[in-house]
Amino acid sequence: MSYITLAHGSGGLETSEIVNMLLFRKVPDKLKLIQGGLGIDFPDDAAAIPISDGKFIVITMDSYTVNPPFFPGGDIGKLAACGSINDVLMLGGKPIAIMDSIVVEEGFPIDQLEKIINSFMNVIKDEDIALIGGDFKVMPKGQIDKIVITTVGIGITDKLIIDRNVKPGDKIIVSDYIGDHGAVIMIMQQGIGVEETKLTSDVKSLTRLMIPLIEKYGDYIHAARDPTRGGVAMALNDWAKASNTVIIIDEKKIPIREEVASYSSMLGIDPLYLACEGVALLAIDNEVADEVVEFMHKLGFKNARVIGEVKKSEKLSGIVLYRSAVGGLRILEPPRGELVPRIC
Amino acid sequence: MSYITLAHGSGGLETSEIVNMLLFRKVPDKLKLIQGGLGIDFPDDAAAIPISDGKFIVITMDSYTVNPPFFPGGDIGKLAACGSINDVLMLGGKPIAIMDSIVVEEGFPIDQLEKIINSFMNVIKDEDIALIGGDFKVMPKGQIDKIVITTVGIGITDKLIIDRNVKPGDKIIVSDYIGDHGAVIMIMQQGIGVEETKLTSDVKSLTRLMIPLIEKYGDYIHAARDPTRGGVAMALNDWAKASNTVIIIDEKKIPIREEVASYSSMLGIDPLYLACEGVALLAIDNEVADEVVEFMHKLGFKNARVIGEVKKSEKLSGIVLYRSAVGGLRILEPPRGELVPRIC
Repeated sequence: MSYITLAHGSGGLETSEIVNMLLFRKVPDKLKLIQGGLGIDFPDDAAAIPISDGKFIVITMDSYTVNPPFFPGGDIGKLAACGSINDVLMLGGKPIAIMDSIVVEEGFPIDQLEKIINSFMNVIKDEDIALIGGDFKVMPKGQIDKIVITTVGIGITDKLIIDRNVKPGDKIIVSDYIGDHGAVIMIMQQGIGVEETKLTSDVKSLTRLMIPLIEKYGDYIHAARDPTRGGVAMALNDWAKASNTVIIIDEKKIPIREEVASYSSMLGIDPLYLACEGVALLAIDNEVADEVVEFMHKLGFKNARVIGEVKKSEKLSGIVLYRSAVGGLRILEPPRGELVPRIC
Repeated sequence: MSYITLAHGSGGLETSEIVNMLLFRKVPDKLKLIQGGLGIDFPDDAAAIPISDGKFIVITMDSYTVNPPFFPGGDIGKLAACGSINDVLMLGGKPIAIMDSIVVEEGFPIDQLEKIINSFMNVIKDEDIALIGGDFKVMPKGQIDKIVITTVGIGITDKLIIDRNVKPGDKIIVSDYIGDHGAVIMIMQQGIGVEETKLTSDVKSLTRLMIPLIEKYGDYIHAARDPTRGGVAMALNDWAKASNTVIIIDEKKIPIREEVASYSSMLGIDPLYLACEGVALLAIDNEVADEVVEFMHKLGFKNARVIGEVKKSEKLSGIVLYRSAVGGLRILEPPRGELVPRIC
């Protein structure tokens, strides 16, 4: 008999495999999407339902299980709001509403729950997003660890940004330092360096970046992702596969904080596999790539930069390559195995 | 310091209180709904977002934690699909799509997970509903008990059925025997009478009832609910409060199976507080009430019947009254305290 392992939930290859095996392949093609929209035919950050006038409702759903629920730079409430807002944005949607379902352990302190909910609320009030529904359940002590929040983000758009539209010639851009969230949670979970670290999670809503960017450069944004579970490595591998391209990124150009780099190297983990919770990864038409980076700087994302490019290749189609600082190319595999449980 | 109790999750008064205190009252009025739609301004089974041509997208979200995950008549997969489909129907929506997020315990047998997912799939395939997205997470052993499934149901309608539209003169109708699901789960959880019981959960999708009913009698259905957590008692109390009416129901008329009645009486629980997972509770315009019951019988719901009526009363507004079989009226309070944890 086979059993579920932590690797099945890591957001890497094993997650794709089990979800495909148990779920996706059992759904008849016509039930994988609403005709004209986007569903599990090409799994992305969110789904889309066509409404009239060429518009779409964008809907995303994520369960947040982060452990610990409070961490430097945020908590599970802030994460549950920002994560779902960002997923709507990455499909090109303007977030308009949110729903959340809270499952909490009997005995959880109400003041801590209030703190978590306040963090959630502060985000949606800041962003002028409506809270239109949800659910609330309690599980007996010992049957759930603290709290799990599932959030539904709802947005509207007249143009979807879809993974498979990545094109040869595109430049790959990140909006900020990568891996901060993943590193902070690992530090907290392992209890090593908790006192001395100055690192905070990068968890934040990306509306202030994505809304103006979509408005000004909508037609040039070929793909967008917030690289959470599985990090930049997973997102780029998804893109290369979905678009039948090869993506080459450059170690020297990837913005990584000193502390994230040294912590990763200590644990033997590539920071490209670490979750980000407030970073946009973009595939931008070469024609405007430098202009877009400059625009991102002006919007306050001063660490934004080009980290790689997309090429056409018959032989290496679907592959991500990584040019190391000392030269030489190697394949950047999609994440596999158990990374960090309950990272988001 | 105060702590979360099982009563907070029972779906009764304490649930309303804590959700109000921590969530609803902190949301500014303009962020309680999408303008023209329905949100937490008047919490119902689902929310609604207006799209063009007077149509609405109906969205519902529920976390299913039922314990045990397999029970006579169904499992958590069937429950997670039917429960969300029914919530969409009860707001007048035609279910078109579903999303689900599975959080499962490390070590959970994959064949059991497959069985659960197959049950989920069988429902949505039967109902021709698209699966358009979701999430999949694993929590380490001992951090979650078996499995929690959160489902989002999505539907479309041009007429919402809303709790507060219950009107004096309306007849209260149930579509079937009440309390079967709640009784089965209690029997399983308590381990008393498991071998001898012939009872099965009533979990089922109500599309075959609600779609024709809405088509034929849409304007006469003033309110609809599937009375899950908190049972018929909670739903009727919500209606009485939302519509400022008094609702009077008649013990003699309520369809309850012999076994549910005797089990409830043994445990000192009123079956009106037990969860149903495949029963519609309706407030129907008096003009067509008998005709509607007959139509329900023709649709195969042969136990459907009128169980009470709605009246206007200045003094008793917001109250539910219960006429016992031996005569005499008493107040049917909304459920309070810890009923059954993880009933759905």
